[in-house]
Amino acid sequence: MSSAKPFLPDDFLLNTEWARTLYFEHAVKQPIFDYHCHLPPDQIANNRQFENLYQVWLAGDHYKWRAMRSNGVPEELVTGNQTSDFDKFMAWAKTVPYTIRNPLYHWSHLELRRYFGINEIINEKTAQKIWDTANEKLKTPALTTHGILTNCRVNVVCTTDDPVDDLAHHIAIKKTKLETKVYPTFRPDKALAVNNAAGFNAWVEQLSARSNIEIRDLASFLSAIKNRHDFFHSLGARVSDHGMENIPDTDCTEAEAKAIFAAVRAGTAATPEQTNKFTWFMMLFFGHLDADRGWTKQLHLGAIRNNNSRLLKRVGADVGVDSIGDFPQARGLSRYFDRLDSEGKLPKTIIYNLNPADNYVFATMIGNVQDGSMMPGKIQFGSGWWFLDQKEGMEWQINALSQLGLLSRFIGMLTDSRSFVSYVRHEYFRRVLCSMIGKEIEGGLIPADRELVGGMIENICYKNAVQHFGLEVGKL
Amino acid sequence: MSSAKPFLPDDFLLNTEWARTLYFEHAVKQPIFDYHCHLPPDQIANNRQFENLYQVWLAGDHYKWRAMRSNGVPEELVTGNQTSDFDKFMAWAKTVPYTIRNPLYHWSHLELRRYFGINEIINEKTAQKIWDTANEKLKTPALTTHGILTNCRVNVVCTTDDPVDDLAHHIAIKKTKLETKVYPTFRPDKALAVNNAAGFNAWVEQLSARSNIEIRDLASFLSAIKNRHDFFHSLGARVSDHGMENIPDTDCTEAEAKAIFAAVRAGTAATPEQTNKFTWFMMLFFGHLDADRGWTKQLHLGAIRNNNSRLLKRVGADVGVDSIGDFPQARGLSRYFDRLDSEGKLPKTIIYNLNPADNYVFATMIGNVQDGSMMPGKIQFGSGWWFLDQKEGMEWQINALSQLGLLSRFIGMLTDSRSFVSYVRHEYFRRVLCSMIGKEIEGGLIPADRELVGGMIENICYKNAVQHFGLEVGKL
Amino acid sequence: MSSAKPFLPDDFLLNTEWARTLYFEHAVKQPIFDYHCHLPPDQIANNRQFENLYQVWLAGDHYKWRAMRSNGVPEELVTGNQTSDFDKFMAWAKTVPYTIRNPLYHWSHLELRRYFGINEIINEKTAQKIWDTANEKLKTPALTTHGILTNCRVNVVCTTDDPVDDLAHHIAIKKTKLETKVYPTFRPDKALAVNNAAGFNAWVEQLSARSNIEIRDLASFLSAIKNRHDFFHSLGARVSDHGMENIPDTDCTEAEAKAIFAAVRAGTAATPEQTNKFTWFMMLFFGHLDADRGWTKQLHLGAIRNNNSRLLKRVGADVGVDSIGDFPQARGLSRYFDRLDSEGKLPKTIIYNLNPADNYVFATMIGNVQDGSMMPGKIQFGSGWWFLDQKEGMEWQINALSQLGLLSRFIGMLTDSRSFVSYVRHEYFRRVLCSMIGKEIEGGLIPADRELVGGMIENICYKNAVQHFGLEVGKL
Repeated sequence: MSSAKPFLPDDFLLNTEWARTLYFEHAVKQPIFDYHCHLPPDQIANNRQFENLYQVWLAGDHYKWRAMRSNGVPEELVTGNQTSDFDKFMAWAKTVPYTIRNPLYHWSHLELRRYFGINEIINEKTAQKIWDTANEKLKTPALTTHGILTNCRVNVVCTTDDPVDDLAHHIAIKKTKLETKVYPTFRPDKALAVNNAAGFNAWVEQLSARSNIEIRDLASFLSAIKNRHDFFHSLGARVSDHGMENIPDTDCTEAEAKAIFAAVRAGTAATPEQTNKFTWFMMLFFGHLDADRGWTKQLHLGAIRNNNSRLLKRVGADVGVDSIGDFPQARGLSRYFDRLDSEGKLPKTIIYNLNPADNYVFATMIGNVQDGSMMPGKIQFGSGWWFLDQKEGMEWQINALSQLGLLSRFIGMLTDSRSFVSYVRHEYFRRVLCSMIGKEIEGGLIPADRELVGGMIENICYKNAVQHFGLEVGKL
Repeated sequence: MSSAKPFLPDDFLLNTEWARTLYFEHAVKQPIFDYHCHLPPDQIANNRQFENLYQVWLAGDHYKWRAMRSNGVPEELVTGNQTSDFDKFMAWAKTVPYTIRNPLYHWSHLELRRYFGINEIINEKTAQKIWDTANEKLKTPALTTHGILTNCRVNVVCTTDDPVDDLAHHIAIKKTKLETKVYPTFRPDKALAVNNAAGFNAWVEQLSARSNIEIRDLASFLSAIKNRHDFFHSLGARVSDHGMENIPDTDCTEAEAKAIFAAVRAGTAATPEQTNKFTWFMMLFFGHLDADRGWTKQLHLGAIRNNNSRLLKRVGADVGVDSIGDFPQARGLSRYFDRLDSEGKLPKTIIYNLNPADNYVFATMIGNVQDGSMMPGKIQFGSGWWFLDQKEGMEWQINALSQLGLLSRFIGMLTDSRSFVSYVRHEYFRRVLCSMIGKEIEGGLIPADRELVGGMIENICYKNAVQHFGLEVGKL
Repeated sequence: MSSAKPFLPDDFLLNTEWARTLYFEHAVKQPIFDYHCHLPPDQIANNRQFENLYQVWLAGDHYKWRAMRSNGVPEELVTGNQTSDFDKFMAWAKTVPYTIRNPLYHWSHLELRRYFGINEIINEKTAQKIWDTANEKLKTPALTTHGILTNCRVNVVCTTDDPVDDLAHHIAIKKTKLETKVYPTFRPDKALAVNNAAGFNAWVEQLSARSNIEIRDLASFLSAIKNRHDFFHSLGARVSDHGMENIPDTDCTEAEAKAIFAAVRAGTAATPEQTNKFTWFMMLFFGHLDADRGWTKQLHLGAIRNNNSRLLKRVGADVGVDSIGDFPQARGLSRYFDRLDSEGKLPKTIIYNLNPADNYVFATMIGNVQDGSMMPGKIQFGSGWWFLDQKEGMEWQINALSQLGLLSRFIGMLTDSRSFVSYVRHEYFRRVLCSMIGKEIEGGLIPADRELVGGMIENICYKNAVQHFGLEVGKL
């Protein structure tokens, strides 16, 4: 059967002449602006050289762990510490053939090709050769963290950081010769967790120590948070982030927030209703902080986390046992935006949904509070996130944004990854985007105009993000 | 790159031979039955001649306003009254290139082509020429409201009217020579708004005055409403309409409804629970009214409205800041249908959902209460509404209805528009429909039978609606 | 117009060379493993010979009844007992042309083709000939229930049975020469229905009689259920099944369950909250039963049933007036899985959702509790169910599972049908699957590797199910 293309050819996903032109003449020429990820700052500061393929490819990648468990691989071979790196790598190599049609199948092959020049189909038979070849290449400067960021032309990286972090690694990064500009992101999720008194109070103590502010009450708590926001700002941060099930549809007076705070500080966990109220209060506070400083706020909504108590105990949080939830989203989000907008305190915002059934809700929600106060596309509907970071997930998000908003003003892709080898996801996104646009040009649904459409592609791939965030960028 | 079709060619969306045959030989030959829209009756009565392109194209179109705000256009240039019509037109012309892939991009170009014969790509450079050409044509009789309805072969228009409206414009329309039959639609949303005592009571006073019935209690309130329903009926109305978040899943005795009514009349706003109860009670009443008279009831469900207090104050309601909600729909709708059906009082009904995640719920809901009591397709799943009135929205609705019900019995498209130049949406719908059917004929999934399938297309485009509503139609 | 394929050609849905190869060289060679259906065991035990086409084709098929009602057919011609089989058949034949694009249009034609060798397009004109030809063939052994199961190469059938069933028909089936292995499935829905005291108590009495256990309290109730589970096990059953709106997000102590049980036994129906609690308690108990015995548990979630009181009274339950609900699913399901997993009592499980908006929630939910304890794909996301058992429903499920889990480990299709002529649905599923995979091979998204991909197709069509259930299979 000669009809099939070879696996992942140069023009994969690019099935029309226009798609290829848009991709090769416009998209690939753009550098990368990775405005949200979970790269570990210490590994950038230290310009880490990876010991072997397992360390760079599997050690931190819970997407792959999850697939291995689905394939019946025992936990010891997934995350165990009694097993060699090679054995865990082999367990993954044996799993890969079973991931056909999962994004991991494409990602894994692209990662080996683009970073290591390895074109093998991954399976048990090719595993040893892949291991040896990759490990050899990992000894070269091209595959240190700096080498990777440089070769991938990553001009900006925004990591994800706790307000109590001292950002020492970020300070250290500034002293290296890395051209990539690396910024911290302010992610204060723990400031909302009043449903867990012990955890909350421990965090408040850390916050107090780090800010040098004695936290006696709600007011000093807010001061300490603002102190850290200021510190992040001083190091160049211009983005905050929140991971939440939803924005609660509630209300909360300052007196109520004070009382809840005091009770939790005295050791009484908040009820679900109180937790919602406190969350609402704090989210307004955070909105003001970002608006006052011209930051962009990110809301990652809809995950249901830690669905496996056994693995939470054994391995920890964020180990591949999270899911898509089905929480109500519309009313809380609408009221949150409206309240901040009414107060003149709505910052630039990006909303991400995890449940694709919410795509249309989110895509219409941003349109309610757009205005001429800052810039086109002030409020953004974020790219397909986590479980939606794959072909149909991206297509749905792009279509929803297109039909209900302005695709042209979209700030595009981010990696959201813990792994340095995941920049191929930008390639994937760009191919999907160019494929969709190219096909519609061929069909007469979009004018066949290089300047108009090529420009739009460049904007979405890079330039809109530069304009949106206003951050200093590298020159890669 | 010669591979692309020109922009919006004659056969756009019609990618197969069968699609073209179905469209050109069957669909375009059908007149238009616009059974739901928001055209202003006064402009039909007066056979309005539009002053300029802004007035006919932008002045009432909140879809376009919304896109302009997303593009960062200041409100003054969107809806301001200190700005000239031309300046607002120019702000829109500059926005159009950024609407690629939004339905507005296609609609806007089709509107200029089909109504004005203007084939330019819309942008800042072509704007002046478009303005001049269009304004010249607007002076001709072809582009008065009567000219438009006649040239578009609109045989029926059902406007949307408050029960307290005196329908003077509708009476006036009947005295004109317009061939299009224009009917009012009974939309009593304000009869449910007991959560706002002042607003509700003001409306009750209007209702009392208009019906000449003193409203002392629930019984006289219902009498006054029935009086208006009768009056609408006498002017040919056969359709009612309700815009709601959802049908509440509740119950309400007459005694409860009486008490709620009395309390609101005395100035105490109803609680959310009471509002739901009163809504349930009234919706049963409205169901009986429609069933007794052989009307068709429309339910537009799922919008979350007025999400921007700032613009509500500045510009008013219905100005482009509404969204898709995520309200529970299934249980309330099921119980509502079942209750009316059990009482032998279920009218012909059309349900429209705004959240596409509800498509399958709605498409199965109609199947529960179909029967042989009136006609095939007594209960209808309405065409893609508002944010869903675009290519993928239409495809989803057509597919859901096809898979779960009988597409052949579908009454098809409506405009739901405030604008006289939006009849191109019928063209768009017909192309989408013929494209889908044609493709499946080519693939052997539908018999290649002109009589069978061509007939189905004609029925969906026009003839099913004629049969469903039983209204006298024009002969255009 | 010569461009169209003939209707339902041999290669329908198979639009690429690879799709055809996968289907004809791999898929069609597999027998059928029908692990969930509603075939009546008595008709298998008796090797029923059908009187006429109505009896085998329409008498038990509520999908077709529903379509007839939507087409305005009076109930007497749908399910009435004053009407001849032929008249009801004719009413269906007249309805078929209106079902274009509904799966019934394809199913009905495939059923006539594959079982009867009748290639006519079904309509009023061809009905008499179809009736005569089919009835003639129904006299042959090929179309008895045994003939059908044998010719369709059905190696396993799992029916659906109440715990109080004596399974006499299953015992009788074992004594026939039928090669197909037929097993009962344990479906204890009535054990949860404490919201209806009379119905629940009647069932408890049956359970007591059947198990020979006096049911005095919750403990003896559980014993009696376990007794029946053991009995089912002794006849080869290895699968249970539950039809529910959702898994309630609640908790229930044994003391609470005892109190609820006692109150209901004393005649007081449980409140909705109590019903949820009792359901939660029982579902944990059922989970333990299945885990201890190595069974597979099925959860069918999301239907909203009996939406038409009029037909419930007139015709009964399960007559085509059920719908898709929009119940919250994520939290209850997550907690249920986690609880059983924590206790080491999570059985192999298949979850089916009825609302396609839940596809992604369900597809991610299975990934949280996969492990190496039993087999790859221990927890399964079930094939498109009921209203989703059609082309786009299957595609969505296959895509969701692919993107979020391991398609390769999928146990594939089942009929879920009450009809012996519905095995064409396996053909339909296999064509859809091969079409999707073949297209991606051609596009270079999957390696063009017969062993790898052909093997995967064979596994999904049959072999994964053999491995998953561990049941003895026929040799057809």
